[in-house]
Amino acid sequence: MTPNKEKIILVTNDDGMFAPGIHSLVNAVRDLGKVYVVSPDSPQSGKGHAVTLREPIRFNRVKTFEDIEAWECSGTPVDCVKWAKNVLLKNETIDLCVSGINHGANASINIIYSGTMSAAMEAAMEGIHSVGFSLLDFSFEADFSASERISNRISKYVLNLEPDSRGPILLNVNIPAVPENELKGIKICRQANARWKEEFQEGIDPRGMKYYWMAGELFNLDKGQDTDLQALEEGYVSVVPCQFDLTDYPNLRNLNGLMNDQ
Amino acid sequence: MTPNKEKIILVTNDDGMFAPGIHSLVNAVRDLGKVYVVSPDSPQSGKGHAVTLREPIRFNRVKTFEDIEAWECSGTPVDCVKWAKNVLLKNETIDLCVSGINHGANASINIIYSGTMSAAMEAAMEGIHSVGFSLLDFSFEADFSASERISNRISKYVLNLEPDSRGPILLNVNIPAVPENELKGIKICRQANARWKEEFQEGIDPRGMKYYWMAGELFNLDKGQDTDLQALEEGYVSVVPCQFDLTDYPNLRNLNGLMNDQ
Repeated sequence: MTPNKEKIILVTNDDGMFAPGIHSLVNAVRDLGKVYVVSPDSPQSGKGHAVTLREPIRFNRVKTFEDIEAWECSGTPVDCVKWAKNVLLKNETIDLCVSGINHGANASINIIYSGTMSAAMEAAMEGIHSVGFSLLDFSFEADFSASERISNRISKYVLNLEPDSRGPILLNVNIPAVPENELKGIKICRQANARWKEEFQEGIDPRGMKYYWMAGELFNLDKGQDTDLQALEEGYVSVVPCQFDLTDYPNLRNLNGLMNDQ
Repeated sequence: MTPNKEKIILVTNDDGMFAPGIHSLVNAVRDLGKVYVVSPDSPQSGKGHAVTLREPIRFNRVKTFEDIEAWECSGTPVDCVKWAKNVLLKNETIDLCVSGINHGANASINIIYSGTMSAAMEAAMEGIHSVGFSLLDFSFEADFSASERISNRISKYVLNLEPDSRGPILLNVNIPAVPENELKGIKICRQANARWKEEFQEGIDPRGMKYYWMAGELFNLDKGQDTDLQALEEGYVSVVPCQFDLTDYPNLRNLNGLMNDQ
């Protein structure tokens, strides 16, 4: 790859192609390289790292972004990334995958439930630098202007990183829902230790059958000042560098009893 | 909680309640405490950490396990655990969650795609000791007898652990598909660094529309002798202790340029 070759950038999300956030993200990166969009044809929030194995997946070319090649996908955010890497762009090197801008926070353990971050993680698992962006505002009218500029700056930063033998960068970026001049800056953080407390609302459907509907609240159990939840609380953009080796290294030795007990 | 109080054990899986593997797992733990089963009403392989947010979820009592209280769930493996913890057993302390026995391997990065392991991880995220079990055999006729005894032994080990302030245990257990006398023993391992190479099969459906169907192969990129893939290769049961803080700690400092570049 020559240094001046145009960069290849893949854009995806989990809110679907009609969500305002992906349009802001396309705008944020459109001048940084050749952009391709592959995104779900319906909202996929909370789909985590799901892949579609038991059914076929459809990909249709769409004109949503005028001059940019875009495809909608009947599957999950992770399906989008796998297909883009292995079919659409199989003869290219993808230099960056950006996912979002998500409508709503993906800080702390939400990375594990989030389709936005799972798409970014899938790209990193396939060796591609990747960033997921989330704005702490669920509303359709959310103001993405500050997020768009931050996404541009962070994307540029990652594209300009020197090659690193340690493998691809994976960033979880969350942006407070405040006007740009009220943002305190960017903080590099660790993932806060938090826990969801679920509330299952019970109801009776029109056919008389009982159902449950999941809702819940995230509780920050972490007193640390260096976490993403704390940075967001203080008005900073939080950036958590992530990885996908889930081994609990400190615990490896504690389990020797299990081996000896044979 | 008095030391002699009967242990509460939650059983779930991702292959659904009709899969032979969950019956072996129920047998493996039925004498270790009071067992409850909450499991999906259809196969949920590859559903990762997906949760059902946009639709209601149904839970129906079933008689599948005779003397054991069992519920089928219209949602994902993670939904099963969340509902069991927050609704069915909200007045109890769940001492152990076991998930599986999965039909097929969940070693290395497959933990991230696996509904079996995501259910176990969800339990750990909610503070519950948890183990996911997988047998390296997809077939309906798979011989679960060795897996059943191993699941019993590991479940007993975890139930007997001293309380630990470091939080719950989360184990990813994979079992080679060989007769019990050919198993070499148990090895505590780290997650191997591997990568899926996807093959999307293209086809034309009966209505003349193009589709893709995902298949692929896992490549072990890891030369280490201490990985789960290596242990399985050698005929050992692999046990990887896991956690869910995805922060890339070695990279925290490398990103300072991003903060200064403001």
